[in-house]
Amino acid sequence: MIPTLEWTNEGVRFLDQTRLPLEETYVLAKSYEEVADVITTMVVRGAPAIGVTAAMGVALGAKNSSAETVADLAREVKKISAVLAATRPTAVNLFWAITRMGERFEALKSRRGASVDEIRSGLVAEALKMYDEDIAACRTMGDFGASLMPREGGVLTHCNAGALATCGYGTALGVIRSAVSAGHKLHVYADETRPFLQGARLTAWELMHDGIPTTVLCDNMAASRMRAGKIKAVVVGADRIAANGDVANKIGTYGVAVLAKEHEVPFYVAAPWSTIDLETATGDEIPIEERSPVEVTHHGGKQLTPHGVGIENPAFDVTPAKYVTAIITERGVLRAPYYEALQGMVLAGS
Amino acid sequence: MIPTLEWTNEGVRFLDQTRLPLEETYVLAKSYEEVADVITTMVVRGAPAIGVTAAMGVALGAKNSSAETVADLAREVKKISAVLAATRPTAVNLFWAITRMGERFEALKSRRGASVDEIRSGLVAEALKMYDEDIAACRTMGDFGASLMPREGGVLTHCNAGALATCGYGTALGVIRSAVSAGHKLHVYADETRPFLQGARLTAWELMHDGIPTTVLCDNMAASRMRAGKIKAVVVGADRIAANGDVANKIGTYGVAVLAKEHEVPFYVAAPWSTIDLETATGDEIPIEERSPVEVTHHGGKQLTPHGVGIENPAFDVTPAKYVTAIITERGVLRAPYYEALQGMVLAGS
Repeated sequence: MIPTLEWTNEGVRFLDQTRLPLEETYVLAKSYEEVADVITTMVVRGAPAIGVTAAMGVALGAKNSSAETVADLAREVKKISAVLAATRPTAVNLFWAITRMGERFEALKSRRGASVDEIRSGLVAEALKMYDEDIAACRTMGDFGASLMPREGGVLTHCNAGALATCGYGTALGVIRSAVSAGHKLHVYADETRPFLQGARLTAWELMHDGIPTTVLCDNMAASRMRAGKIKAVVVGADRIAANGDVANKIGTYGVAVLAKEHEVPFYVAAPWSTIDLETATGDEIPIEERSPVEVTHHGGKQLTPHGVGIENPAFDVTPAKYVTAIITERGVLRAPYYEALQGMVLAGS
Repeated sequence: MIPTLEWTNEGVRFLDQTRLPLEETYVLAKSYEEVADVITTMVVRGAPAIGVTAAMGVALGAKNSSAETVADLAREVKKISAVLAATRPTAVNLFWAITRMGERFEALKSRRGASVDEIRSGLVAEALKMYDEDIAACRTMGDFGASLMPREGGVLTHCNAGALATCGYGTALGVIRSAVSAGHKLHVYADETRPFLQGARLTAWELMHDGIPTTVLCDNMAASRMRAGKIKAVVVGADRIAANGDVANKIGTYGVAVLAKEHEVPFYVAAPWSTIDLETATGDEIPIEERSPVEVTHHGGKQLTPHGVGIENPAFDVTPAKYVTAIITERGVLRAPYYEALQGMVLAGS
């Protein structure tokens, strides 16, 4: 297991993903504000990891709070939640986790005679439960998804939907891990994933860590590898899935999906149920974070582009459901029509 | 006019494209070996510019040669040609230019009583003529292509098929320059073009130099911009066009072509006739240069990927003719079926 994030007595400890792959260093966030910073600066990233991180942020904030009454703690938790919710807009897991912690707070508060300390402990326990659930969900997704992978050959992934994007096993890379464990001979092609290079840095690092054969490609090379027949399947994660099956994921995912369709390569999305946002009807309603131009214009402190040129840096794009062969969740594998499949799974899960 | 390359009394002078956009420095190649190095290290790049550079390399080698007899000079020119031909494999303009210089040598040699010095001067004159022809061809292509550009809106280009890829006006960017001169209100989206970043560095630099509005995108962002309706046309250059209209161009071009088709955006290729290789039946026969993994793994001296990970770095890909809306040459605009169109233009041009 890769120690993406961990609750400790001193705070939340994160493997610093901005320093990988060459340095394996850790950041200890001792306050909820520091947890928020860790999300904003992408020390931790990946929708499921962001969700659990935010839950731990709420728990840490409550634990550190000097509130002496339940009413004071309620005000604190509300403020903490607002700060954490303002970190990044696209991954719905963030809001899902904060909402769940809020609901847990209400449930704890409503118990007759609950003390401030009992509520604090209950919030910490809830965050730890979400951590465990994430790992269990990824392993279940892995089991469901493994049989969709080819028996042998190349599998393309984009960005990092791995152990580093979750609490330690991965969504898309969890499917690959489970397939490899089940004996599939896979070779992973990892898009480098500009501008932040999550593929080149993180996916390559964690797959090498696990001994899974991996080749890094520039994003623009995937098309020619597909045309050469080297890619048998694509599997990616998601930051938010709308009620109609449209998928928001790392910028470039949509292009990969179009290429997969053109080459008749199956395109799979692996994501926990917490990534599914039934309140959002279609992908067009998903807010897309625009990040700093500096991520595009500079690398390693060096400027790449001429002064003053226009830059766009959307962090995500939306892949319409029609390009998605299947969505792999811990509740099962969904296929089109996704609206009906998702509604059916809500009923089955309730 | 951008001084991409220039014949001088001391040798061939190149704007150093590895230092752009932040430094405008020049490299003077004083021998044919130095000219070969300048091609290999991509101080100069772009198929048409490589062609004229190689011609100047032959002329420079002949000029500097100590040969005292025509037979000695013939041996020298053969050796020089072999060294220059071994620099890069994909751009056919390189071989076209070397062949043309060889034919010119034979023609000069066959003149009764031709002296070694007369042949030397004749070779220099031929290289200078090819330089002038390149600029004229680009301007003619620009005129033919301008009317294919939208009256206003976004035009996507990939890599640099500009002044910096030619002797000073550009093929794809020549079309854009001519359209802008003719009053089209264009906004250029320049793919950054990993790994060598010709778009971010060179296309952005030369379009800003000419005051044409330009936005740099990571390669993986073009798909979402197309889906958003921001791209009205794509125009790229070519390194070699096969007899059936298949186009070898910078890695990533094929992916852009697939995206353009999916979004019903016209996809244009602008290239001089010297890029067309009627000896090569289809794109599958075009040799694709594989460049050093270091271009992918490192940037600005900094390593991006974990030690030991697999890397692929093909410099070019092939776009099948079916994705190409039209090929813009100095002889006219060709449309499918390309085999027939190209053969017809050979007859018309002969």
